[in-house]
Amino acid sequence: MTSYRHLAPGSPCWPVELDTIDSPPTSLWARGRVELLARRPRVAVVGTRSPTPYGELVATHLARTLAHEGVTIVSGLARGIDAVAHHAALEAGGATLAVLGCGVDRPWPEGALSERMACEGCLLSEYVPGQAPRRHHFPWRNRLIAGLAQVVVVVEAAQASGSLITARWAADQGRAVFAVPGRIDQPMARGCHRLLREGAELCESPADLLLALGLGSSGQDAPPGPPDDPLLAALQGETLTADELALRLARETPAVLVRLVELELAGAIVRAPGGLFRLARRA
Amino acid sequence: MTSYRHLAPGSPCWPVELDTIDSPPTSLWARGRVELLARRPRVAVVGTRSPTPYGELVATHLARTLAHEGVTIVSGLARGIDAVAHHAALEAGGATLAVLGCGVDRPWPEGALSERMACEGCLLSEYVPGQAPRRHHFPWRNRLIAGLAQVVVVVEAAQASGSLITARWAADQGRAVFAVPGRIDQPMARGCHRLLREGAELCESPADLLLALGLGSSGQDAPPGPPDDPLLAALQGETLTADELALRLARETPAVLVRLVELELAGAIVRAPGGLFRLARRA
Repeated sequence: MTSYRHLAPGSPCWPVELDTIDSPPTSLWARGRVELLARRPRVAVVGTRSPTPYGELVATHLARTLAHEGVTIVSGLARGIDAVAHHAALEAGGATLAVLGCGVDRPWPEGALSERMACEGCLLSEYVPGQAPRRHHFPWRNRLIAGLAQVVVVVEAAQASGSLITARWAADQGRAVFAVPGRIDQPMARGCHRLLREGAELCESPADLLLALGLGSSGQDAPPGPPDDPLLAALQGETLTADELALRLARETPAVLVRLVELELAGAIVRAPGGLFRLARRA
Repeated sequence: MTSYRHLAPGSPCWPVELDTIDSPPTSLWARGRVELLARRPRVAVVGTRSPTPYGELVATHLARTLAHEGVTIVSGLARGIDAVAHHAALEAGGATLAVLGCGVDRPWPEGALSERMACEGCLLSEYVPGQAPRRHHFPWRNRLIAGLAQVVVVVEAAQASGSLITARWAADQGRAVFAVPGRIDQPMARGCHRLLREGAELCESPADLLLALGLGSSGQDAPPGPPDDPLLAALQGETLTADELALRLARETPAVLVRLVELELAGAIVRAPGGLFRLARRA
């Protein structure tokens, strides 16, 4: 007999994040390590059921690194990116939750991963035990995948993909939505590029997600040029135009303007209105 | 003896776009088909001197397709993406301009491409004939590459790349700046991803650039679902909540909400404040 646990709002293990989403669940069934529900933060790693090797590589790297940092990986147990993310989290000895579109006693797809998730991870569902998977359950449970997470990252997705529905629920719920870019000749990058066009944040590394969780450092550029750069020295305590700087440094304005743009790109200086430049706060 | 032509503001072939940029040139020297300066629109295709095969593929595809559409390709004659873009435009029988950091009589780098550009394309420079290339000339002439173009696209660029300087001049000049995404494990995608984070538009195909030029169609999704979708029918002339729709259609609210998100992603419906949904204008 399969063992599982029923949770209701207010139960000790109830994920309170779900209380504030639209259409919150009234019940959850949990199978496996229910105590994982107490661990935070959580990141949802989702994507296509037909990933490329690149997508699998990225999902593995993100899930493994986040798991090592103590982040719980949430996904949907589906083939492809979901499965890769759960697997990487398990292999890293981390916490991972799968939200199902059917009863937790009959996970779909069934196999080695669902067995392992039921022991080392946790299967979750708002559907009663015994409930068979139904097509429309999957996009609907996606709101719980997003709702459980603080950050949602879409790794690979076709132009019309269930992952875009997850991203939409996530945006509605005020979660941070990230998308991983890819090659423009790769159809499985289309959904992610669409999300980026629509305002999702670009995920280039696990550090981007950790930063969004308030963990880790900002990964900013290295210190912005040698501290003895004559241009930076001239801007100490001053706000000057390029012409004024050229005059003070006895250099040509074009060379000064080029260096100003370089220093601006490096974050060492900022522009002020009226063609003026000054040191950045942190410089 | 090398033949070239001197242009000044007001000359018949003078590119008037340069009159409104910061630090406009006071003179230009042109070598080759000076009449190409009369052709518009222009797109600048720029990027790293050390592209990947993917970057070369993308630059070729963009430049060739744009050239076929009558767009003039502007770049900097540098090895890598610049050279690939000029070459693709020439092969397509299109117009292409190279802005140099030295005199047009001694283009750098010199070789088969510069020879061909001097015959079939046009070499341009604000530096007097005879002027040797100097390191700081190249980022400075980048403002002319951007200034000549209506749209600038960065194909591949390292985290700190001259192409980012071009993109910065372009943004300052009010040009549309596009960046091509790539694999996150590819260093030559870093600069483009940085531009995307900073607000550049995402270029997935030549159609994106043509659209920005006011050419071509919007490349929107196909018609948003069958016109006999009962949900779309129910929204004819109405603005309803998901619960009201569920009641009218005798369906469960979750299924209706999922379908609403799908139709929203397809552009068929839009949300109104208060959990209301209505048909999109074009539906």
